[in-house]
Amino acid sequence: MDIKEQVFRIAKDARHAASAVAGLSSADKDEALVEMAGQLIHHTDTLIEENEKDVEAARRKGLSKAMIDRLVLDEKAIRAMARGLEEVAALPDPVGKVTSMWRRPNGLLVGRMRIPLGVIGIIYESRPNVTVDAAALCLKAGNAVILRGGSESINSNLALSGILRGVLRVRGLPENAVQLIPVVDREAVNLLLQLEEYIDLIIPRGGEDLIRTVVSQSRIPVIKHYKGVCHVFVDASADLDMAVGICMNAKVQRPGVCNAMETLLVHRSVAGVFLPAVAEALEKAGVALRGCERTRAVLPGVEEATEKDWSEEYLDLILAVKVVDGIDDAIRHIEQYGSLHTESIVTRDYDNSQRFLREVNSSTVLVNASTRFSDGFQLGLGAEIGISTTKLHAFGPMGLEELTTQKFIIYGGGQVRTS
Amino acid sequence: MDIKEQVFRIAKDARHAASAVAGLSSADKDEALVEMAGQLIHHTDTLIEENEKDVEAARRKGLSKAMIDRLVLDEKAIRAMARGLEEVAALPDPVGKVTSMWRRPNGLLVGRMRIPLGVIGIIYESRPNVTVDAAALCLKAGNAVILRGGSESINSNLALSGILRGVLRVRGLPENAVQLIPVVDREAVNLLLQLEEYIDLIIPRGGEDLIRTVVSQSRIPVIKHYKGVCHVFVDASADLDMAVGICMNAKVQRPGVCNAMETLLVHRSVAGVFLPAVAEALEKAGVALRGCERTRAVLPGVEEATEKDWSEEYLDLILAVKVVDGIDDAIRHIEQYGSLHTESIVTRDYDNSQRFLREVNSSTVLVNASTRFSDGFQLGLGAEIGISTTKLHAFGPMGLEELTTQKFIIYGGGQVRTS
Repeated sequence: MDIKEQVFRIAKDARHAASAVAGLSSADKDEALVEMAGQLIHHTDTLIEENEKDVEAARRKGLSKAMIDRLVLDEKAIRAMARGLEEVAALPDPVGKVTSMWRRPNGLLVGRMRIPLGVIGIIYESRPNVTVDAAALCLKAGNAVILRGGSESINSNLALSGILRGVLRVRGLPENAVQLIPVVDREAVNLLLQLEEYIDLIIPRGGEDLIRTVVSQSRIPVIKHYKGVCHVFVDASADLDMAVGICMNAKVQRPGVCNAMETLLVHRSVAGVFLPAVAEALEKAGVALRGCERTRAVLPGVEEATEKDWSEEYLDLILAVKVVDGIDDAIRHIEQYGSLHTESIVTRDYDNSQRFLREVNSSTVLVNASTRFSDGFQLGLGAEIGISTTKLHAFGPMGLEELTTQKFIIYGGGQVRTS
Repeated sequence: MDIKEQVFRIAKDARHAASAVAGLSSADKDEALVEMAGQLIHHTDTLIEENEKDVEAARRKGLSKAMIDRLVLDEKAIRAMARGLEEVAALPDPVGKVTSMWRRPNGLLVGRMRIPLGVIGIIYESRPNVTVDAAALCLKAGNAVILRGGSESINSNLALSGILRGVLRVRGLPENAVQLIPVVDREAVNLLLQLEEYIDLIIPRGGEDLIRTVVSQSRIPVIKHYKGVCHVFVDASADLDMAVGICMNAKVQRPGVCNAMETLLVHRSVAGVFLPAVAEALEKAGVALRGCERTRAVLPGVEEATEKDWSEEYLDLILAVKVVDGIDDAIRHIEQYGSLHTESIVTRDYDNSQRFLREVNSSTVLVNASTRFSDGFQLGLGAEIGISTTKLHAFGPMGLEELTTQKFIIYGGGQVRTS
């Protein structure tokens, strides 16, 4: 079978499995997820062995230490995946939920019922845990999933998906609800992205390059975010101690993720007091600042920010800092340079808090809290399959509900239409 | 200015206007909509004059009578558009609505707020009333709209959009919230569909060919339905009088629309009684039947249905009829040949009513009611901008809410993330 036939066959099998998965009871799905967790633990040794092949190959290829770290499956990582499966099992099943229902003057009872999307393709890079997380969430929401991990984790991914599929098979559930594309050739992705007849949604997870490639090639809808250039705006009335705490958390706690702060905006009336305080804390934590002219007037040692810095996602201990004239200036800056991801205002002013929430069009907007809360778990969705900065279908962190859609259901008593 | 520059300029102006429109108060929007209604009536003579240019050109080009009928604007049509504007003004404003809000263990208050999508492109065929309807709905939902009507209605559309824009201008509102592409060249559409940076959503309204062309060329998400192959399934336990009433309504009341019935499925145990009754009524109304073998055993005069008939959207007084073995067979047939649009079961059986609602994956599923109710107004959405049979973002009739998305808004008290 050539690659084309192979990918086509996988997509067709997924479509077929999707019908069956859509009809599974919550108990069927949850029991399978819990058993998958047990089987991962049970096969710890095999998983580590298969993973070592990938790690060995990565070393031979001279991949960076950071990339190899992301690749490694040890006992702790396997236990974490198993726990993840159990947590997904424990979440409420979104499928079949009637979210609202109303009565029409002619007596028709009209409601909206959540149903699965169908077949979801996940295209990701090196982390093998995505194989398990994504499969669990798609399955729980009644979808079939086609997984396409990075070539560098192929042995780990095959071992993981093999275990998940084995559980489905043994329990008499549709095995093809979880499929991994075993071909490492990049051509397989291009082929997959053309099969709009069989696949309902593509979710790419990885760097901006991967996502841009997927978007440019796909005939299937893609939900994605390219990058997170998140802002914190410290208003004139801010509690400055709180502001330092939020800035430290947003920049330093985990600088390599998309909801970390990349640009700090400071109201000019507090710049003189606040900037030295926050700079001291940040610099102690190893953060390099790049400031606008007014920032450098207060902090002369700081490197000059260039135009490019305002739209940069550093993913590192670097922070762009700009003094602004007020909330209008801050909102304008965010509109011009932001990525529609996550922005926070620190303020004690009621009107400004309301204006910021209303007028900033990012997918997550916070008052007096760290940008790091922009995350499905932290916001209480119970899970996260990704974050969307496109406004269609889902905007912001996506949980189980975002892997479903709603159909109209209508109870009648013989009504016909007269106009 | 060449076409490319012109389309680019329109898209850029729309993006700019979208920010302003998103922030308008409900009163600003509603008062403008009501004044637009008044101005349409006020300019009735001009509108009819401009429309006559289009009708004259259409006659010269030898367009069909049906197409010319769709094109004509008379006093009645203008009054209907004005009433439509007033109805949209009276609908609740979806923008800014907080649809839910919950408290996290750390005290964060997390909510979801409806916001406009941004810039919406509507690509449509001959009916000039779409210019007004679509503009009104997009504006009410806080979006900027780019309208691209058929070349045959260009003078009517320019006159209509000119009046709408005039109202915005005079009231000091962003005039570019409503723009019509004045270029009849098809190249303009191709260009528009590439501007993903400026346009958030494309809604094509027209025949399957138009929609397929738009989908194949667009880099922007498209919400659409290709066709409506709607089914009515008459179950063994159906009230057969009710079933005749529903079938007549679904097929005959307005055969040329997407929610009309195209295939009738009849349980074999009632075929002998029901088929003669429904055939008599349908044939009296001028409907030509095309039946499967078992149908023709009961109704020998009926033309034989071919494989092609099961997926045909006739949009005419023609009906495909198939005898099925029961609900499983009916659901299977719909899954194989249906278009995910609208299906209805006529039954007195509780379990079958529930199974049909749950297992049929179309965007609208009814029990004991006509497929003709699959419509935004009929279902109580208050308006309809289109019907989606793709599952992303919206599935089924789309009202004002479907022209918005939701962002997360978060009220904190200084929370930072610890894990």
